[in-house]
Formats: sequence, C-alpha cells, structure tokens
Amino acid sequence: MTGGLNGGPGGGPGAVALGGGHGLYASLSALRRVTSQLTAVVTVADDGGSSGRLRRELGVLPPGDLRMALAALCGDDEWGHTWSEVVQHRFRSEGELHGHAVGNLLIVALWEKLGDTVAGLDWLGRLLGAHGRVLPMCSVPLDIAAEVELDGEISTVHGQVACALTPGRVRAISLVPEDPPACPEAVRAVLDADWVVLGPGSWFTSVLPHLKVPELADALHSTRARRLVTLNLAPQPGETDDFSPQQHLEVLRRHAPALEVDVVLADTGVVDDRDELEKAAAALGGRLVLADVAAADGSPRHDARRLASVLDEIFHEKR
Amino acid sequence: MTGGLNGGPGGGPGAVALGGGHGLYASLSALRRVTSQLTAVVTVADDGGSSGRLRRELGVLPPGDLRMALAALCGDDEWGHTWSEVVQHRFRSEGELHGHAVGNLLIVALWEKLGDTVAGLDWLGRLLGAHGRVLPMCSVPLDIAAEVELDGEISTVHGQVACALTPGRVRAISLVPEDPPACPEAVRAVLDADWVVLGPGSWFTSVLPHLKVPELADALHSTRARRLVTLNLAPQPGETDDFSPQQHLEVLRRHAPALEVDVVLADTGVVDDRDELEKAAAALGGRLVLADVAAADGSPRHDARRLASVLDEIFHEKR
Repeated sequence: MTGGLNGGPGGGPGAVALGGGHGLYASLSALRRVTSQLTAVVTVADDGGSSGRLRRELGVLPPGDLRMALAALCGDDEWGHTWSEVVQHRFRSEGELHGHAVGNLLIVALWEKLGDTVAGLDWLGRLLGAHGRVLPMCSVPLDIAAEVELDGEISTVHGQVACALTPGRVRAISLVPEDPPACPEAVRAVLDADWVVLGPGSWFTSVLPHLKVPELADALHSTRARRLVTLNLAPQPGETDDFSPQQHLEVLRRHAPALEVDVVLADTGVVDDRDELEKAAAALGGRLVLADVAAADGSPRHDARRLASVLDEIFHEKR
Repeated sequence: MTGGLNGGPGGGPGAVALGGGHGLYASLSALRRVTSQLTAVVTVADDGGSSGRLRRELGVLPPGDLRMALAALCGDDEWGHTWSEVVQHRFRSEGELHGHAVGNLLIVALWEKLGDTVAGLDWLGRLLGAHGRVLPMCSVPLDIAAEVELDGEISTVHGQVACALTPGRVRAISLVPEDPPACPEAVRAVLDADWVVLGPGSWFTSVLPHLKVPELADALHSTRARRLVTLNLAPQPGETDDFSPQQHLEVLRRHAPALEVDVVLADTGVVDDRDELEKAAAALGGRLVLADVAAADGSPRHDARRLASVLDEIFHEKR
C-alpha cells in the first residue's frame, strides 16, 4: 500500500504488533493494510475457555490468541476467507467439544505432529494465506500473577481468568515462571523492525506481559525501531475499570521504566484531558497523536481502515 | 500414468471406488496410481470411536471413513503429506479430546460452516491437494442392522460396532433408515464411470451397505461401467471369521441378486479352491483374476503398487 521505510520486496515498513486477543486482532487488521512486513508477537498466558482446557489437557501453549492473530491476517480471497472462518468456528453442543475453536485444535495438532511451535504456526499461516507471521512471545505456557488492591488490602491472584474476575484494582502483574524463555524469532523480529506497536488490548493480561519476558523486554528496549502505543477505546472490565488513558501509560511506565515510546495514539473521543495525556506521553519520551480511529457506530472497537490510515501517516511522518 | 479408456484431460479411466475404512484406503492408494479420474463413495454407518462420538454429539455424518479416503488421495508433495498427517493425527490424553482424529473435527467444522456435506469434503480435498473426489454414499447418518446367527438362533443387532462385536455369524445386513437418500453426486459418479470397484473392506459394514441405498444400488445396476470386486486378504474378525473368498461373493449375490460383475480380483495366496472361486465369480457373471496383490511382508494388507499394476492391466484389458 505504501512505500517502505525499510521494507523488503513486499513493501511497507517492518512492523511488529504485540498484544493478544481482540486488541491484537484490531491492530493487525489495520497494520496489514499498511505493510506486508508484519509480525505479531502474542501473549501465551490465557488460562480460560478453549485455550485453558487445551493447555490443561495437553500441556501445550494456549493457542487461542495465536489463532485470532492468524485469522486477522488471512488471505483476501475466497480461500483465505473460508479457511479463516473455519479456523475461527466454535463447536456448540452439550458435549465435550462445546466451546472449542477449530483453529485451536488445528494449531495443537500441528504442534504435536511437527514438534515445533513456530513451524506449526507458519503452517497454519500458509493455509490461511496469511499476510504476515504470528509468533508466541515465549516458548512455554505462562501464568499471570496480578497484584490486586481492594479496600486498601493488597493480594495476589493467579491466572488470566482470575485476574479479570477478582474484584479490586489490578496494580501490577508478573509472570509465572518469572524468567520464561522468549521465542527467539520474536526477539529477532523486534530487533529487525522499523516500528513496534503495543496495544490495544487487555492492558495487564495482553499488553504488559511482553515487558516481563526478559529477552523480549531487552529487545523492545534496545531495538532501533520506533515504538508506538495504541491506547484502548474503553476500559477493560475487571482489569482497568476506571483507568483513564493517561493511567494506562503510567502503568506501562511502572512496568518498564526505561522504555522510550515515540508515539502514543489515542482516539479523539476517549480523551477527556488532552493536556494530562500529552504529559503522560511525554513522560515516556513520546508525542501524542489524536485521531478518529474508533468504529463509526460508536462501539468500543477500532475501525481497521481508519486506524490503518493514521498508522500509515505516522509511519511515513505525515502526522 | 496410463492412457484413458474414457479419461478426461487428467488421464486414466473414470473409476469409482466404493467401500469404507482401511479397505477403501488400500483401494484408493492403488487406484490413484492408475487414473486421475477417481471418486470414492464412502459408507456412513460408523458408530464407533471418534466418528461415533461426533455423530452422537453433533448429529453429523460419521466423518472418519471420509477422512481416511481423503488422506489416501493426498497430494504427493510436502504440502499434501504434511496436511494428510495432520488430518490423520489423533489426540492422546486423559481428557475429552482423547481419540479424536483432527481431520474428523475439521470435516465437521467445514460442514457446520458451509452447510453442505459435499462442499465441505471438496474443501478438505483442496487442502490436501487430493487426487480425486470423496463423497458419502448417502446424505444422512445410517445404522446397520445385522442378522446374526448363533447356535441356530437368529437375532438382529444394530450398529457397526455391535455387528463386529456380537458373537455369531452375520448372515445379512439392512440399513436404518431403510430407504436413505443417496448422495446425488455419488449416483452421478457411478453412472458416469468406466469402472466401479467394490471392496476390499469389512464386507458387511463397509462394502455391502452401498447395495442397500436404493438410488445408489440402482446406479450400480444400470451403469455402463464395468464392475470389479476386489476380495479381502483375510476374513474380518467378528464379521466374516470363517468365510472363504467364494462365500464373500455368495453373500454379495444374496444382497444384490441382479448385480453383474465383470471381474473378481483375488490374491493368489488366499485362494484355496480356485475352481470354486471361479464358479462363484461366474455366478455373478464375471471372470476371476488371480494375482499377487498382498504386501510382500506377509501382512494381510494390499500392496498399493502391486494392486495398481494389476488394476491397470485389467482396466486396459491386458489381463
């Protein structure tokens, strides 16, 4: 779509999107319109739903967020759309398959058959005709330990589901194990990128965990890529119920005090105090870009075309 | 591989293989070497294992025999082999997925997503780069009712699993429902074929059921295709424990008295009374071809190359 800053033959700058779940899906749906040099680096801490059942039953990485990221990158033809729909399809029944997403089962089967996490994801990417690569942030399943404050008391809860459901305000997260091995291909992608994009997404459970994987955090600090943070359109129930946009940035800074950010992108409609948000961005070393990136229907999700258009301008320094 | 009798641009005669399970897999593994105009018509009466669980949980056709047939036709390159292995992969665990074949889940997902049995199988065929088409013999799940004789008493057992496990000799089978709708594409394939091939396979539960689907049986009787029966290499435990090759033909005749057969193919090693077998073939209107088509290691399975070579000679009237 655009001339590349450092793009290969496919065109566009090399971009790495970090996150998980629906937020990463939105980010990738936009970024695929801006560059063909695209890598997703995905959290692997989910312990709920189909993913949680699979990691407990088969001892594998939770595949759900990886599947969603691959689906976001599916080919633009009938082949890509059909397989993407099949991969996203969930069984509904009163039996043992209820709730399992087909793509989760397919990813796990590829892992078991090929014995290689990255190769398995690459094969599913080939099936989908994916416009980019999807990698796990680390090679082992993780649990999130969240420090939660309720009525002045601080306690620790374990697991992504518990983190979202426990009453109280999440203050910080750490990972179990604490020093998990990063996926080497993910580290390499971050180091080689022109842009790394953090968020949107569940702030504590999908965005911040990347900063707690030591080798990945090192790469995010030392890469010569520019760093962009895309803020959420609405607080995440259970995680960040009453967080302002600037509080999201403050939490990010607490989790990675030395991380410099070049651009903070926020939707015009969610900013109630522009000055405060500019200050919070400046505290990270970055500038604030406000733009209309939310869906036109008013729902709290990013519009892929609008977000792509703004990202394209930012990447090419027109904004 | 060969010049076609009536072959299209792909080459080779139009062949339809009827059966199910490992027998059909063997037949297709040979036939794919002989022609590229190949259609498998598969029984849908399985009620055991992964297929049985899926039909009970989700109300679908049992996918297992369809999956195996598609795997037998997979592309000859890394793509085809990899996806075939994934499709054939079975989960092993102590949980709810244990024993499910991945391809069964994928077929069911395609059916649920596309709402079309044949389209779903065609999509999996495209994924595998399949050398041919795989169709169900009819559009609804079937049960087999078997008339079983034990110590002079005759009883009826229902279901493929019960049929294989119940002590006694199976005398005849019928279908429940009795008048199931044939798959129209399967009927068309039989009518358009140059050759139809019945067997090898579990005689009562994989080979004979096709003759009990009225429209499919009509097509098998009225087609101008030549008809070939490939006999088994060993009796099927529980179904045909002490059946001689000629008894297999007699049972076939009892289930379809008006069906004329052109060729009966048997392995040299399994024939103890050639005269009797020739008579049984002649009673069906056919001639006997004896050849070495068993695996060289002595195991009771067909060797794909040997079987292909003999089928090629028969199709081209060199044998």
